[in-house]
Amino acid sequence: MTDRVKYLLDETRLPTTWYNLAADLPVPCPPPLHPGTLQPLGPDDLAPLFPMALIQQEVSTDREIEIPGPVRDVYRQWRPTPLFRARRLEQALQTPARIYYKYEGVSPAGSHKPNTSVAQAYYNREAGIRKIATETGAGQWGSSLAFAGALFGIEVQVFMVRVSYDQKPYRRALMETYGATCVPSPSPLTQYGRAVLARDPECKGSLGMAISEAVEVAASHPDTNYALGSVLNHVLLHQTIIGMEAIDQFETADDYPDVIVGATGGGSNFAGITFPFIGAKLRGGPDVRIVAVEPAACPSLTRGRYAYDFGDTGHMTPLTKMHTLGSTFMPPGFHAGGLRYHGMAPMVSHLRQLGLIEARALMQKACFEAGVQFARAEGILPAPEANHAVRGAIDEAIRCREEGVSRAILFNLCGHGHFDMQAYTDYFADKLTDQTYDESELAMALAGLPSVGS
Amino acid sequence: MTDRVKYLLDETRLPTTWYNLAADLPVPCPPPLHPGTLQPLGPDDLAPLFPMALIQQEVSTDREIEIPGPVRDVYRQWRPTPLFRARRLEQALQTPARIYYKYEGVSPAGSHKPNTSVAQAYYNREAGIRKIATETGAGQWGSSLAFAGALFGIEVQVFMVRVSYDQKPYRRALMETYGATCVPSPSPLTQYGRAVLARDPECKGSLGMAISEAVEVAASHPDTNYALGSVLNHVLLHQTIIGMEAIDQFETADDYPDVIVGATGGGSNFAGITFPFIGAKLRGGPDVRIVAVEPAACPSLTRGRYAYDFGDTGHMTPLTKMHTLGSTFMPPGFHAGGLRYHGMAPMVSHLRQLGLIEARALMQKACFEAGVQFARAEGILPAPEANHAVRGAIDEAIRCREEGVSRAILFNLCGHGHFDMQAYTDYFADKLTDQTYDESELAMALAGLPSVGS
Repeated sequence: MTDRVKYLLDETRLPTTWYNLAADLPVPCPPPLHPGTLQPLGPDDLAPLFPMALIQQEVSTDREIEIPGPVRDVYRQWRPTPLFRARRLEQALQTPARIYYKYEGVSPAGSHKPNTSVAQAYYNREAGIRKIATETGAGQWGSSLAFAGALFGIEVQVFMVRVSYDQKPYRRALMETYGATCVPSPSPLTQYGRAVLARDPECKGSLGMAISEAVEVAASHPDTNYALGSVLNHVLLHQTIIGMEAIDQFETADDYPDVIVGATGGGSNFAGITFPFIGAKLRGGPDVRIVAVEPAACPSLTRGRYAYDFGDTGHMTPLTKMHTLGSTFMPPGFHAGGLRYHGMAPMVSHLRQLGLIEARALMQKACFEAGVQFARAEGILPAPEANHAVRGAIDEAIRCREEGVSRAILFNLCGHGHFDMQAYTDYFADKLTDQTYDESELAMALAGLPSVGS
Repeated sequence: MTDRVKYLLDETRLPTTWYNLAADLPVPCPPPLHPGTLQPLGPDDLAPLFPMALIQQEVSTDREIEIPGPVRDVYRQWRPTPLFRARRLEQALQTPARIYYKYEGVSPAGSHKPNTSVAQAYYNREAGIRKIATETGAGQWGSSLAFAGALFGIEVQVFMVRVSYDQKPYRRALMETYGATCVPSPSPLTQYGRAVLARDPECKGSLGMAISEAVEVAASHPDTNYALGSVLNHVLLHQTIIGMEAIDQFETADDYPDVIVGATGGGSNFAGITFPFIGAKLRGGPDVRIVAVEPAACPSLTRGRYAYDFGDTGHMTPLTKMHTLGSTFMPPGFHAGGLRYHGMAPMVSHLRQLGLIEARALMQKACFEAGVQFARAEGILPAPEANHAVRGAIDEAIRCREEGVSRAILFNLCGHGHFDMQAYTDYFADKLTDQTYDESELAMALAGLPSVGS
């Protein structure tokens, strides 16, 4: 047999636990604060929004948290996901680097998001919840929760940022096929939405606004909960199955990554692929460079302030300490809709503060160029979000070529781009711009940060 | 561990040969005829269009044909594909049936088509061919050949039926991402296309016309060949890897299908899943019912005539004996673009004549209803073509429930529907019709069949 390109795991090696990085952190994360009292949040404060099992995961410091049987039963349909050695890409780049990618696009919804949506739907059903409200930007998260809701018999209502709702009807059609209802946000269905529409009837919406609407619906109905697709500790926790499988697969490959590149929006994809490796390193395991890549147009990790901020525009969520561009920050239009959030997961922000990870901001045209090169070599068309990781990995591989060094590079191909073909069409028509953010817009948004002592 | 839902094969069990049903047929297929002389075709007659390796496969009666190493290397990226037990669908249907589906949507292009496009691109490269011309309707085949061309360094030119070219820009964007060029057909690039446009400048095109254009380009350039995505023996041969893997997977599952349902357009998907099982039966193996399902709007197997006919509208291809609606037949608009061909693979037609397979025609709304039910239970959104197989399998499962019998039902989920969301959108908006074909249109097309003795 010629050189292997794929490392599968037998389903008997599907992890039985998620990995909780909080157990291995040298310094704990600053606690979230109640939006009213500014005091550290207690479990009961979150009870109107989340089932207690998820609230416990949010604050747990246990290293291993068991994956419930029914969740593993669903995972087993597409997990363990393959780890690929990108031999054809290596050849195209003429690099001595060994490039590996974990591929999460094999999930039914086409991204890594079902790793947490399935778990969240399960815990909510166990808690007797009838309906979940959530928000979505480009639609990756909304369709993943819609999928999970269909499996566990939970009604799903998705507030979709209006500009995406209008521009991405196919992602909406996918959610509806799974049986979810999809509402353009801001909507007349919530007090918050009506207030926004009264000020600006043409408002195109934002992720922060959609979060406010979904939280309001959940908080005001006892049988309805809220679900978030990134940022929170329990969401990041569910994604660690990606990196845990990868560690096992690297053993089969008799190799280990020298550098891991992860795309960051809210932080869940990045956490999924890197946390188990970071944890191994903190426990005395092999060293590995960790590089977070984010869009230059929404650069929370590289240009945001590390401060307490709200997760939503309507200021209904708790305050968390994170790298933030300010909850009113509106990034310019770019195609990686999953990376348009103003903040960064507190846990990822904390790692950056501790110097355990690097961060780089990338321009979108260079990311699409990398995505096209990847598609022509490996056959898989990446989502625009994933193109950031592809760009970062290719840059590392080029560096290997220039330095004449062979390093093992790992990235997570978090999803396919089948629902993002307009972005590729625009790229080929030379309609993409390399716009970054507006400096005065950022200054204003940062000036509006709540004044909370660190 | 709970009941298994997925049967993978280790890549060491990737088949090393394709299975050739011609070796086991009780009566050989009638030979193809030269369009000019009406005499049986010789290998040299096909040499302007295909490399000799494929021409030999077209006429071979060897039971096993070796898969070249470089083709297996590419296959290994996504093959063996999973065989799933649809336990959640069984539960939703409350059926005692055991429903299995082989899933070919895991290929980079999202369908079974790369099984043959990769092989065809390889043999053409080995023969020193620089460029391949082909046709595509909905785009599944065109994007699969574009993918294969990118891997083997072959230029790919796709003549895309104009109505699809205009309506499905995203499938075209996928082909272009892989580096292929895509031309709306009829086009001014060929003599045939110019003649059609002179008669009707607004002509929306058809698969038969696009084939004529691609064949003309290949026939008139020595460094250019032609490739077809279905119908021909060698194309069906390459797809048999699907059924061969399935036989191995059923052994792991300690089960065997009682009935196999396959969707038929040109016949390659159907052949891929069924031929190895039919061959096993012909060699004295277990009995298995084989059901071909086709769209009621383009029902070649159930309503066509078994006769010699051309493969294209321009009458440049050889004549083959097949179930045909006539090469000028234009089916009404429906969404399973991959099932809109006027003819049926000669080998599949022959099986029908021999009484080895059954055939049923299905209405499109019932197929989409089945596809949505499948998506909500299994999470995977099927392509409209695959919905026919889903409908057929669900009908068999309902019969099991009504009869109180547990049977094993197998179908091939030949591709995902991510590029077909307009069809689902139309389905939910109640815009789909259950139109069948026009009887007088069919009568006219059949009257135009060439008069060739059987």
